Amino acid sequence: MKEVKVFSPASIANLSCGYDVLGVCLDNIGDVIIVRKTKEKGVFIKKITGQNLSTDISKNVAGVSATALLKNTNVDCGFEIEIHKGIKPGSGIGSSAASSAGSVYAINKLIGEPYTRNQLIKFAMEGEMTASGSRHADNVAAVLLGGFTFVRNSIKHDYFKLNSPIEMAFAVIHPKIELKTKDSRAVVKNNVTISDMVSQSANLGAFVSGLYTENYELIGRSMKDIIVEPMRSILIPKFNEIKSACLGEGALGCGISGSGPSIFALCKGVSKANNVAKKMKEIYDKLDLEYDVHISCVNDVGVKVL
Amino acid sequence: MKEVKVFSPASIANLSCGYDVLGVCLDNIGDVIIVRKTKEKGVFIKKITGQNLSTDISKNVAGVSATALLKNTNVDCGFEIEIHKGIKPGSGIGSSAASSAGSVYAINKLIGEPYTRNQLIKFAMEGEMTASGSRHADNVAAVLLGGFTFVRNSIKHDYFKLNSPIEMAFAVIHPKIELKTKDSRAVVKNNVTISDMVSQSANLGAFVSGLYTENYELIGRSMKDIIVEPMRSILIPKFNEIKSACLGEGALGCGISGSGPSIFALCKGVSKANNVAKKMKEIYDKLDLEYDVHISCVNDVGVKVL
Repeated sequence: MKEVKVFSPASIANLSCGYDVLGVCLDNIGDVIIVRKTKEKGVFIKKITGQNLSTDISKNVAGVSATALLKNTNVDCGFEIEIHKGIKPGSGIGSSAASSAGSVYAINKLIGEPYTRNQLIKFAMEGEMTASGSRHADNVAAVLLGGFTFVRNSIKHDYFKLNSPIEMAFAVIHPKIELKTKDSRAVVKNNVTISDMVSQSANLGAFVSGLYTENYELIGRSMKDIIVEPMRSILIPKFNEIKSACLGEGALGCGISGSGPSIFALCKGVSKANNVAKKMKEIYDKLDLEYDVHISCVNDVGVKVL
Repeated sequence: MKEVKVFSPASIANLSCGYDVLGVCLDNIGDVIIVRKTKEKGVFIKKITGQNLSTDISKNVAGVSATALLKNTNVDCGFEIEIHKGIKPGSGIGSSAASSAGSVYAINKLIGEPYTRNQLIKFAMEGEMTASGSRHADNVAAVLLGGFTFVRNSIKHDYFKLNSPIEMAFAVIHPKIELKTKDSRAVVKNNVTISDMVSQSANLGAFVSGLYTENYELIGRSMKDIIVEPMRSILIPKFNEIKSACLGEGALGCGISGSGPSIFALCKGVSKANNVAKKMKEIYDKLDLEYDVHISCVNDVGVKVL
């Protein structure tokens, strides 16, 4: 195999109760990445469409992740990468994760798969470091493993997949404002009370339990964030109004996607997600604020060859 | 029915990664509680064997819990309670929880079961408040529901049972030193860093996932406590030495049972738990410190009529 073309999907990190821990892989929306072997050794970003991004491999997350993989792997060729961005950088639905995970997944395919999907996470995390200044694995784990994913320990590279109840559907709205992950991480306070820690961790544990028992009500009432959302939501226009409208329409839960500004609502069933998205749009239409809306089921496969 | 005799078991709270959230019900060890209807209204503690405890219903946790239940329930009789203590108060394996849960469970039986086991938790918690000064539900939920249990929110009374992998076995050692729950709660610091919160909550979520997937290795490596154990363990003789010995012998995890001083080790299989208990004993034997040792499987039923 000399060339491979992959679809690398968007993802939602945190899911309200799982800051830096939970992620979920989306379908429909993602980047398409083509990687070709080259005689010349090294990594080359040959082409980027859809977004205006650097082709410098020390700045582009796909280049950074690919370089991290190759530093640990003996290969006698190089790789040129074409990136067709379907996800907008800075949207909060894992744009950098899709490009990072997609490039290492594609290269791994071309070199005979010496790594499992799980083992590729550590290389893709290097792209996240470049994008946001923090080596977080929540989005890249979701893209590489598919479904709902869990980061137990990103230093020890302990990641796994959770169960995904079949009827889960997401409505996501991306208000077109600029919000850098770095800035969004900066508003997170450094300390929490032990009682807030107990509440937040109880919600995370209950959410995980709800996924396994497919208890949609438990999943919904566990999607609380008393630590990060109160600070970050200030940076997102009409966050509280949108959240109330989504929950009023019957969403199981609603929160900030990753570090924002996208807002997601988790719903039971696609038709409910469509109704919830309508409510989201109405609120931004009144403001004349530009936005994108996505409806997505859980993508249980993750990044894949096209 | 005029009289009921129940067995109300011991329990382990926290389980390292789930402070104020996780609990597990033990078998073999527990209190026996007999409750009889009386013509005279009210609650009367008629007899206590095994321990020297107050029969004042405003001080004895069985009396406090029973009174809390009766305040919310119309009955035209009273109840006299006999308590045969099998669990030592202050041992950290849910002595107050067993008496609290046992008394309300028995009374509920005598009055035709107007409450589910889950609904009895809030009454039994009143006994915990009297015993320790905090209205925590982790032990009483374990006693009433059986198995591994989860307290999502004790103000909203949101409790549920988790899955219990079949081979779980506990070795517990109780060093006979006095350690009041109140004092043990006082050494817990009020604030944690967000990064410690993420680690601790990731371990809790991973532990829950491990219970459902029956992944013993994941359960073991998730049993970490970076928040409470470093402070509380100072109050327990040779804690670190015992923990090392247990893990060295192949225990999945080892930590402080509830607020201590008992130390528990979770093992795969009873024979492993027996070997681990031997190592625990060797360490206290060298100190000439008195102790009790218990070996227990998970009691998936909880408190029950004898």
